[in-house]
Amino acid sequence: MSSSYGENIRVTIFGQSHSPAIGMTLEGIPAGEAVDFEALSAFAARRAPGGQAYSTARKEADTPEFVSGLKDGITCGTPITAIIRNTDTRSGDYENLRTVPRPGHADYTASVKYNGYQDFAGGGHFSGRLTAPMVIAGGICRQILERNGIRIAARIAAIGGVKDEGELTEAVLGKSFPVMSDAQGEKMLAKIAEAKEEGDSVGGIVECAVFGLPAGIGDPMFDGMENRIAQIVFGIPAVKGLEFGAGFAAAEMLGSENNDAFTVENGRVVTKTNHCGGILGGITNGMPLTFRAAFKPTPSIAKEQDSVNLAAMEPVKLTVKGRHDPCIVPRAVPVVEAAAAIAVYDAWLARRKEIQF
Amino acid sequence: MSSSYGENIRVTIFGQSHSPAIGMTLEGIPAGEAVDFEALSAFAARRAPGGQAYSTARKEADTPEFVSGLKDGITCGTPITAIIRNTDTRSGDYENLRTVPRPGHADYTASVKYNGYQDFAGGGHFSGRLTAPMVIAGGICRQILERNGIRIAARIAAIGGVKDEGELTEAVLGKSFPVMSDAQGEKMLAKIAEAKEEGDSVGGIVECAVFGLPAGIGDPMFDGMENRIAQIVFGIPAVKGLEFGAGFAAAEMLGSENNDAFTVENGRVVTKTNHCGGILGGITNGMPLTFRAAFKPTPSIAKEQDSVNLAAMEPVKLTVKGRHDPCIVPRAVPVVEAAAAIAVYDAWLARRKEIQF
Amino acid sequence: MSSSYGENIRVTIFGQSHSPAIGMTLEGIPAGEAVDFEALSAFAARRAPGGQAYSTARKEADTPEFVSGLKDGITCGTPITAIIRNTDTRSGDYENLRTVPRPGHADYTASVKYNGYQDFAGGGHFSGRLTAPMVIAGGICRQILERNGIRIAARIAAIGGVKDEGELTEAVLGKSFPVMSDAQGEKMLAKIAEAKEEGDSVGGIVECAVFGLPAGIGDPMFDGMENRIAQIVFGIPAVKGLEFGAGFAAAEMLGSENNDAFTVENGRVVTKTNHCGGILGGITNGMPLTFRAAFKPTPSIAKEQDSVNLAAMEPVKLTVKGRHDPCIVPRAVPVVEAAAAIAVYDAWLARRKEIQF
Amino acid sequence: MSSSYGENIRVTIFGQSHSPAIGMTLEGIPAGEAVDFEALSAFAARRAPGGQAYSTARKEADTPEFVSGLKDGITCGTPITAIIRNTDTRSGDYENLRTVPRPGHADYTASVKYNGYQDFAGGGHFSGRLTAPMVIAGGICRQILERNGIRIAARIAAIGGVKDEGELTEAVLGKSFPVMSDAQGEKMLAKIAEAKEEGDSVGGIVECAVFGLPAGIGDPMFDGMENRIAQIVFGIPAVKGLEFGAGFAAAEMLGSENNDAFTVENGRVVTKTNHCGGILGGITNGMPLTFRAAFKPTPSIAKEQDSVNLAAMEPVKLTVKGRHDPCIVPRAVPVVEAAAAIAVYDAWLARRKEIQF
Repeated sequence: MSSSYGENIRVTIFGQSHSPAIGMTLEGIPAGEAVDFEALSAFAARRAPGGQAYSTARKEADTPEFVSGLKDGITCGTPITAIIRNTDTRSGDYENLRTVPRPGHADYTASVKYNGYQDFAGGGHFSGRLTAPMVIAGGICRQILERNGIRIAARIAAIGGVKDEGELTEAVLGKSFPVMSDAQGEKMLAKIAEAKEEGDSVGGIVECAVFGLPAGIGDPMFDGMENRIAQIVFGIPAVKGLEFGAGFAAAEMLGSENNDAFTVENGRVVTKTNHCGGILGGITNGMPLTFRAAFKPTPSIAKEQDSVNLAAMEPVKLTVKGRHDPCIVPRAVPVVEAAAAIAVYDAWLARRKEIQF
Repeated sequence: MSSSYGENIRVTIFGQSHSPAIGMTLEGIPAGEAVDFEALSAFAARRAPGGQAYSTARKEADTPEFVSGLKDGITCGTPITAIIRNTDTRSGDYENLRTVPRPGHADYTASVKYNGYQDFAGGGHFSGRLTAPMVIAGGICRQILERNGIRIAARIAAIGGVKDEGELTEAVLGKSFPVMSDAQGEKMLAKIAEAKEEGDSVGGIVECAVFGLPAGIGDPMFDGMENRIAQIVFGIPAVKGLEFGAGFAAAEMLGSENNDAFTVENGRVVTKTNHCGGILGGITNGMPLTFRAAFKPTPSIAKEQDSVNLAAMEPVKLTVKGRHDPCIVPRAVPVVEAAAAIAVYDAWLARRKEIQF
Repeated sequence: MSSSYGENIRVTIFGQSHSPAIGMTLEGIPAGEAVDFEALSAFAARRAPGGQAYSTARKEADTPEFVSGLKDGITCGTPITAIIRNTDTRSGDYENLRTVPRPGHADYTASVKYNGYQDFAGGGHFSGRLTAPMVIAGGICRQILERNGIRIAARIAAIGGVKDEGELTEAVLGKSFPVMSDAQGEKMLAKIAEAKEEGDSVGGIVECAVFGLPAGIGDPMFDGMENRIAQIVFGIPAVKGLEFGAGFAAAEMLGSENNDAFTVENGRVVTKTNHCGGILGGITNGMPLTFRAAFKPTPSIAKEQDSVNLAAMEPVKLTVKGRHDPCIVPRAVPVVEAAAAIAVYDAWLARRKEIQF
Repeated sequence: MSSSYGENIRVTIFGQSHSPAIGMTLEGIPAGEAVDFEALSAFAARRAPGGQAYSTARKEADTPEFVSGLKDGITCGTPITAIIRNTDTRSGDYENLRTVPRPGHADYTASVKYNGYQDFAGGGHFSGRLTAPMVIAGGICRQILERNGIRIAARIAAIGGVKDEGELTEAVLGKSFPVMSDAQGEKMLAKIAEAKEEGDSVGGIVECAVFGLPAGIGDPMFDGMENRIAQIVFGIPAVKGLEFGAGFAAAEMLGSENNDAFTVENGRVVTKTNHCGGILGGITNGMPLTFRAAFKPTPSIAKEQDSVNLAAMEPVKLTVKGRHDPCIVPRAVPVVEAAAAIAVYDAWLARRKEIQF
């Protein structure tokens, strides 16, 4: 039952790229939480396709209509549903994909799973467009977290092998191209432009940090912070890898290097390094929670590719038409923040059950 | 509710390192599945501490007692519970950890979360020992998968930066030190011995492949194969990173390099490469499902470390006593296979609801 | 997380009586199931308020708009969402209910639970109007069940103490006032008219039967057919009692009277009586599954009642304005069928995981 | 996945009547809750078979062994598992039930569901014996509720048509035969003795009340207090009906009779009557939560009955051997209290997520 996430809240994402609408239902948000629509729009706008060189020309307002769960802009305690109309769709572009699956896309696997009844137009439910309602849900969670002193920021850590420099801080939030080093950002943009020119695409890495999270959040074993974040982040199309703190680099370290020594600072337990990414045994330790998600390059490319005709069961050449991002990483940044907000808020809410009050 | 996993089956892991017993309950396994106890013991033995240089000297039979769910060695359809007694425990070794948390362990975070009521002895519920019941549950799932033509194999892909060579095949299953290149294996063992000699520890990477999986298994968005596997694999202590197929390497590729071209082979759709790790849109494509998990070095090391006294809230020096593995990666290999077996079997069972029959 | 139901499918109901829309999301329906919109409309029409003497004058088309999950009227395997616009709302009628809760309604309890932020207009999420999307979801499940030989029929078993006569059969389905004995139906209508005249309301009992259900469906303990049906039927506003088969009458029987003797009929195991309502140990035995749900009288009555002013914390007299059904039982009949369809289809789908094929 | 219950806590019941052990795992109980073992034993003893005329001669200590989740008798926050050994089993008594199902039992339905692999001895997982671990889990929840001012009491409301008199109060808790009117209790005992003499059995009704529950607990729609309690109470073997407050009687009332008028008492909102059983819209209103569960007569009777031989598919006569209760209602009283405790504690814990603190 793939399209729902959460334990204490539950977000359900519905819709296909070319269905009448897409949207989300968010259950479990306590009553009395104000929704700042302006902030929500600004957050969603970071994901929306615009006039940038690296994003699709498809233009959609992506303005959600909240049909339930609010009263005078404040949560009333029952399920919040928002829908976003699909208006600028050109289904004709995809007709040939019914029998010839695009490499790197879910066309083939969906065809098997759904026995030919999948909605193939525009990738259907597998389209990156379905991250729009995730951003709405995450934006609401993010606002509540902020009111509780917890902030989330993500950056482009790398594109096509070009790495950002410096440590991730909240300063990145105001930037239109979210990197710490603008010089490296220029090189990344050049990498994207290069790929676009060749009808190709390029992947990258998004790094995310959660600041202000108290210690004691998360559960052992299968509901640790890593597990919770992983379950939602791998739900973002194109994510193929995820690491927390030092991650894969820790696999090459000695214990004496990787262990984060404890000390006391301003009467608070802190660690001198943060190789564990703020998580020990699945539970937050009060340091920033950090993770990095690897995005594969956009599978839609203009170059001719090898595929098969599923009806004839024979190899064919395929050229994918339509409008596509040469690199989805920049637009994925707020999506990763949204995913983190949902996972962290859910775990934070779980924590309230344990606290004596 | 951290210690349960699954949608169509549910495995619940219970116990602490030094409680009377640890164990697991496995719900949802259909009636009529024979359990091969000999095979199960052999599988569990691969995880058990032995006389190897790289594992703890703690010796436990780890023989599970099945108290329910079987009739004459065959599943009867209702919950299967097995317990493993904790016999060789030395709680005294851990008394000082009540107030001085070990760096890299869950001691501090558990203390905050459980308000001082955590079972700190031997790491409590956070101990690597809790992977023993996971192997029992996974071993049962693995046997059912095998009867359906699905096999799982994992190897040590790297230890302390020393990488295995060659492609992972099922041939690795018979080996006591599971690497494809025994020469590389020797170097890994040297790396472990070196760390041990210095009172230090070392991390590594486990790679796992699932062979024989049909196309069409898994769900979009939050219950894709990546999400399902991630939720359980991050439940194995010390895992800090996870990638599928090309994973983080894909983030540096062009779309034209990373996309796996389709072709037809023996009347079957296959891909020429397998950068996607057998998963597109969360759903299997019929190629081997592959993933790699990064393990941090064992946090328990003999070297003196910086910690804090939580009662006095002041920095102290800590030397961890007790018996510990200088490298847990070799023993983690069957645990990763077990986790994969549970996740894959659960998804496979989900698939049966969709098939017309 | 109150507004979701199901294990193998999941239905989520959203909306408030006076929010822009109400609706439902239905996950887990396999791809390839055609939706007969005409049949669905006819089913929904049985619930909709019309010109009958016993129903509210509020008129709404209640036509659902399917915004996702279908392709050319056939399920595509991903979440199905339908919304129903709220158009004929008169919020002004309810303004005084903010501080003076109506007896028998959720006004007071919602006010406590939601700390004053509840959407009180028209009962908010607690309104009987929210059964409209339940009927949409149930109608889809019902169609799939019918294609598999499983039929559901419900009747008005009693209103205000006036009981229907005869055994419940599918013949009742065609009737506008669903009773087996039309003579008794007339007496029930008289009872309703009498209550209405006095500005009062009256309760009743709905009986439901599921025909054609194979043996072996349902699970022991907490997911038996009784538990599954109970969890959804008590979600219908005003239901205060539920019994299966002989139900409360069985509590007065001897074992020798209540036990249903087995015999063989046309090569099939059947029982000579059906006091167990087709369920033994939570699992269907192949006989009709039968249950009865008790509905309290509509709490909204025209008579003056005692309440309290929550702001002043003092007793006040209350006269409820607005349009209300003097008896909701007739309109509840298809809602009970819908609830049964959802619960039975979910359990039926669960069964597929166990069958060898 | 029948044998687990709960949203914020989860109790899983495992075991068969004649497996090595039965038991329960209880997840989600916050750390720091002391378990009073003496009180727990006393509570469990009320369910245990003893020397009473109305209970089976099978004698078992039913002493649970807690293998995990406690440290020095206090919850440590991770899963609590307790097992109870099955010692006094006589499997031979049940051999003939493999092919000849007992009327009123789950033998036939389990045989279909589990394809012949069910553990038929003693009713397997369907045995009333499985209520022993439910009482352990419920007993722990009950202790925590009591520390928070919430008390639960149940009584025998009727046996074989003989009804108890007077209102249910906590005074009933100390009684060995829990009725308010001992005179009526004598008549009930006579009814049981009469049934026993004739090799027959008799059913009855258990009424339960929860005192001291604050307003605002429970959720709308599918997780209301009725739904939550129903899902667990129908998991008690032999329960075939359930009603809250006035229940089925409300179906015969007018709205003006059934509505509970609000008033103010000691600065608190109360209702003058309690026909709603303390629940409006699924949410508690601060009055006692009351419900009644109908138990069918024990299906095991000494009289000869009609059944079928499933192998030969022909009718046969069956005489059930073994030791059985002529009436399980008295022993079911603490089981109902335990079920209520689990459901109420779970909902109470859910409430903590909503409260501002």
